[in-house]
Amino acid sequence: MNSQLTKKRLLSPADIKPTNDVFEVIGVFNPGVIYIDDDVLMLARIAERPLEDRRGFTGLPRWTSGGDSTVDWVANAELQSIDSRVVKTKVDGCLRLTSVSYLQVFRRKRGSADPWSLGSRFLPNSPLESFGIEDARITQIDQTYWITYVAVSPTGVATVLASSDDMLTLERHGIIFPPENKDVVLFPSKINGQYYALHRPNPSSRFSPPQIWLARSDDLIHWGDHAPLVAGCHCWEGDRIGAGTPPILIDEGWLLAYHGCSRPASETAAGQVGVYSAGLLLLDRDDPSRVLTRSSAPLLFPTTSYETTGFVPDVVFPTAMIDAGESIDLYYGAADTSIAFVTMKKQALLDSLHWN
Amino acid sequence: MNSQLTKKRLLSPADIKPTNDVFEVIGVFNPGVIYIDDDVLMLARIAERPLEDRRGFTGLPRWTSGGDSTVDWVANAELQSIDSRVVKTKVDGCLRLTSVSYLQVFRRKRGSADPWSLGSRFLPNSPLESFGIEDARITQIDQTYWITYVAVSPTGVATVLASSDDMLTLERHGIIFPPENKDVVLFPSKINGQYYALHRPNPSSRFSPPQIWLARSDDLIHWGDHAPLVAGCHCWEGDRIGAGTPPILIDEGWLLAYHGCSRPASETAAGQVGVYSAGLLLLDRDDPSRVLTRSSAPLLFPTTSYETTGFVPDVVFPTAMIDAGESIDLYYGAADTSIAFVTMKKQALLDSLHWN
Repeated sequence: MNSQLTKKRLLSPADIKPTNDVFEVIGVFNPGVIYIDDDVLMLARIAERPLEDRRGFTGLPRWTSGGDSTVDWVANAELQSIDSRVVKTKVDGCLRLTSVSYLQVFRRKRGSADPWSLGSRFLPNSPLESFGIEDARITQIDQTYWITYVAVSPTGVATVLASSDDMLTLERHGIIFPPENKDVVLFPSKINGQYYALHRPNPSSRFSPPQIWLARSDDLIHWGDHAPLVAGCHCWEGDRIGAGTPPILIDEGWLLAYHGCSRPASETAAGQVGVYSAGLLLLDRDDPSRVLTRSSAPLLFPTTSYETTGFVPDVVFPTAMIDAGESIDLYYGAADTSIAFVTMKKQALLDSLHWN
Repeated sequence: MNSQLTKKRLLSPADIKPTNDVFEVIGVFNPGVIYIDDDVLMLARIAERPLEDRRGFTGLPRWTSGGDSTVDWVANAELQSIDSRVVKTKVDGCLRLTSVSYLQVFRRKRGSADPWSLGSRFLPNSPLESFGIEDARITQIDQTYWITYVAVSPTGVATVLASSDDMLTLERHGIIFPPENKDVVLFPSKINGQYYALHRPNPSSRFSPPQIWLARSDDLIHWGDHAPLVAGCHCWEGDRIGAGTPPILIDEGWLLAYHGCSRPASETAAGQVGVYSAGLLLLDRDDPSRVLTRSSAPLLFPTTSYETTGFVPDVVFPTAMIDAGESIDLYYGAADTSIAFVTMKKQALLDSLHWN
């Protein structure tokens, strides 16, 4: 499938101004996307890091309770490098991010090649977001846009629920999945009277690689009935899997794209991350705990230079899928650096699934 | 405080018969406790492991979907020892437990020294419990006993909710906190119209040591409004903290005991676990997210031989606290091996807290 698709990069860091003159933008990626009338609206993650290269030190950015970003300069001797995204402080074994992210709305006409117009900017606004907010997914339910995003702070990596009627302002509804949990997507309607979400716990005690779980709710705020749904079973998803795009309802059931990450060649070498590819999952329309079929080979994997090189090389990370009639539009983050897009004939995409 | 208390061991492995003749009992510990009329009822964790010592191999027990226990014999060369409780399989980096646990009811008259009578036995009964069920806490709400316990399986370490009207049978209500989450305790009544729980996420990405979190629910099944409540701040709780006993309401607010674990001397040496001690936490009666005061020094720490030696040495792990009028009764696991008990004058216990 991958080879027949025309990938297109939509935004890259060069398109974005930093929030202040001591930061540089290193990524615009992993967008939640909705179509409003004739417009495409993307809620993208923008990652920044300190511009200054201070010899012997690493600048670790964070958001302050006053609502500004700042940088903690820590001696390299006190840090252990994990990968490009995180370092460990030796004194207490705790992690810090090397960049800090916020969420930015971009908008333009569908099919247009014009520059994107900038919409609202959502910055971290509490101690639970002090290391940044990341990876928004958007699900329209009735007339409201429900947004899940990842909040990172000294208390961990959790998922927050927010809502908006206009994508101009956000109302936050607190943490719905405590640490460590990301890759949370909401189904766009109730099923048998309840809301459903996919989530991806990442436990300290690893009895298996991280898996996709299903949960249910009466109100989108309080979640229960947690159960594992899908485990990685092919080598391209051997290290971890996670949703992915909010599911869309097609004739055949609930369709979504998810990411799988392969096991890195060496688990001990610093800087090793596996290859992130995208697969498809089809769930029963009346009972999403029933997996009808899934990709055996990746639908998409890194091939272009903007997917194979960047802040985290070799990453294709799907975050939005939209039913555009005959075709399906897929938006994804590339190498934790850029936003890219493919459109696929719906029938070809279904044919790529190996039905059992 | 510790030195003025008379600790008493209530049960040890020698008191318990194994479930079959190829297993030995290595622990009876971490009990949920309620007082029913004049009786003490304990729902204890019993841990078993293979009796056979097969040269060059380790026997890893688990529960089968058929409802029986079995043992996987794995060559030691394929395993990495983590501590007495867990090993890591080298081929996939995943964990296995060296023992398997179930829950057992014990009952006798309060104040009696008679042998305990055996009540119902609750065994793992689903793939989500195949590595055992552990560490029950009991909270009576109206006429129902609500039980949280830890389920361990290849999908991780999660917390299940169950209920019982008579402690003869259990009704399971699914996973309420997905992996990794344990040390979940329920408050015994609604507060401002909502149920409250304390829980203890343990994320893979460690931005801080594990902390106690607070969550709210309308129905005990679906939980939201997650927020961190208490972080370890003294050296005896430097590695992690967790509830503890279900809170009890006294004049001063919600009182509970929690555990803190110190950082082990060496984090890299296999077999290193810190010292587990018990502290007290007092929360506002109308808003449990307000911490009124907490122990600066441990209320209880390991001193007796049955606390300092055992399956996991140096563990005092409080799991039940009961208001007995002038005194407070505290039940705890000792060294992941035995059940022990102390009773304390309520006023002395409150005096031990350093009020701010």
